[in-house]
Amino acid sequence: MKMLINVPETVVSDALRGMAAVHPELTVDVERRVILRRDAPVEGKVALVSGGGSGHEPLHGGFVGPGMLDAACPGEVFTSPVPDQLVRAAAAVDSGRGVLFIVKNYTGDVLNFNMAAELAEDEGIQVASVLVNDDVAVMDSTHTAGRRGTGGTLFVEKIAGAAAEQGAPLERVESIARRVNDASRSFGVALSACSTPAKGGPTFELPEGELELGVGIHGEPGRERRAMMTAGEIADFSVDAVLEDLRPSAPVLVLVNGAGGTPLLELYGFAAEVHRVLRERGVAVARTLVGNYVTSLDMAGASVTLCQVNDELLRLWDAPVRTPGLRWGC
Amino acid sequence: MKMLINVPETVVSDALRGMAAVHPELTVDVERRVILRRDAPVEGKVALVSGGGSGHEPLHGGFVGPGMLDAACPGEVFTSPVPDQLVRAAAAVDSGRGVLFIVKNYTGDVLNFNMAAELAEDEGIQVASVLVNDDVAVMDSTHTAGRRGTGGTLFVEKIAGAAAEQGAPLERVESIARRVNDASRSFGVALSACSTPAKGGPTFELPEGELELGVGIHGEPGRERRAMMTAGEIADFSVDAVLEDLRPSAPVLVLVNGAGGTPLLELYGFAAEVHRVLRERGVAVARTLVGNYVTSLDMAGASVTLCQVNDELLRLWDAPVRTPGLRWGC
Repeated sequence: MKMLINVPETVVSDALRGMAAVHPELTVDVERRVILRRDAPVEGKVALVSGGGSGHEPLHGGFVGPGMLDAACPGEVFTSPVPDQLVRAAAAVDSGRGVLFIVKNYTGDVLNFNMAAELAEDEGIQVASVLVNDDVAVMDSTHTAGRRGTGGTLFVEKIAGAAAEQGAPLERVESIARRVNDASRSFGVALSACSTPAKGGPTFELPEGELELGVGIHGEPGRERRAMMTAGEIADFSVDAVLEDLRPSAPVLVLVNGAGGTPLLELYGFAAEVHRVLRERGVAVARTLVGNYVTSLDMAGASVTLCQVNDELLRLWDAPVRTPGLRWGC
Repeated sequence: MKMLINVPETVVSDALRGMAAVHPELTVDVERRVILRRDAPVEGKVALVSGGGSGHEPLHGGFVGPGMLDAACPGEVFTSPVPDQLVRAAAAVDSGRGVLFIVKNYTGDVLNFNMAAELAEDEGIQVASVLVNDDVAVMDSTHTAGRRGTGGTLFVEKIAGAAAEQGAPLERVESIARRVNDASRSFGVALSACSTPAKGGPTFELPEGELELGVGIHGEPGRERRAMMTAGEIADFSVDAVLEDLRPSAPVLVLVNGAGGTPLLELYGFAAEVHRVLRERGVAVARTLVGNYVTSLDMAGASVTLCQVNDELLRLWDAPVRTPGLRWGC
């Protein structure tokens, strides 16, 4: 497997050097692996910190900026960041109004964020945490007890980020983040495995004529393998899997997310099918985002995330955001 | 080769249905294959129309909106749009101040845009055309006499689009577009071939241990094949190929563009190396854009485009743009 890298050992550092060179609006500590808003700490503002294994870009580093995250801590590829990174990030962004940790539900992340929260509290930083566990595909998995955190993370970071930007106190930002997670559900499919730099090849085997329904963002096994399906059939299966668990009584935000290796041309065709299924099921769509946002390196495939919103959450979704990966209204 | 599609025959229509569903700010004529700004024609404004084969998304349809294109016409995958589409688009966006066609230099595109320009003139629409031919890799190629048009197209569409948005007359918008093309040079590499829906598999053969230096955006042959190189070596080769042809005496815009299948994590690492080479060669960087903008379906690889700018062109680059694929300042 050919990759556009120097050596596997420096992939994350090299990417951070690139972010530092390209984004003057961010402060990137390449050595300590912390990405900050240049203007952090922002006076009077609750700070949002997230992070996780690398390989899901633009999540999380590409979501640092006004209206979204104050800091992100990338771990090695598909490996949690360590508590030291997270504490350093929390200290750098805390304005005195407290810090919200946004944690995807993987065993390593939960452990490290929890430890970091304790250490930060010891340093006098008020920390709240919200766990993202939106993936309906499976309960428990290779890296997870309970449900995995996937595309819903984008909704949590954007909407809670808008609330924080507007001056909401920590308790309220936390409760909004929790509400968004509770209202979000995801389901993903893989058409091909992804290849990590360390392994130098595919992380799992997926035969030519099959797809994996319910795959995780590290290629964790899903619900089942089947013979290859059309975009329409995949949309039916994915949306129905989500709707079995979330029966929206209000309009939804839709994320049609690429796994990384699927062309935008295909993602838009898939989005058309997702909209068709939602229409057939009587679900109203408020907004749709199509693109590669929560990726799995070069994996071919896609996921659908729905998030039921009321007027307040929709206003926060529409609020200005200015990050490398998500940007509107400013 | 598995793809997230229904059948190869409907890939472009399906994607257009998706764009229509997802982007209420655009008018998408799925049947006639024209994507328009919702508010077209914009009174008093010169209109920009581009188009080309599908498979390079977000180019061109994703660049329709305030500050960039007024219309885009997608052809079949890797196939030029037909004159009828282009004339229809020109008629729909012309406010009476004229239309600029932005044409990538491929034989089919040149032919069809020329014919469309004549037909539009017959209908009383004033049309100017600018040819984009920024790719330094090879003279003449599978689909091209002269140089191919690749990443520079983004700079031409953005900067000329800003001039038009600010009310410049057709002659001036055309001359700015021409200046931007003259100041832009690109060089791309492929680590893997791309697969078209019609073919259902790779469009060319690239052995496991080799890369193609100077590849075109349809997988056209480049300068040479070599044993796989590091990101740093590829940056040296690519930037030097560009600088052999363009010796900047002013700062440059840099586009580090993904071919579609290369993860953002790798693109940022590559961007770090591109910046290193530019620093070593004494070239000042004004702005850098990293991401998948001018793609080749699922091809793994990347290209570097440099565009030398003065204060005026830089101001136009920084001017607000609001499209699905490029958005800032508004």
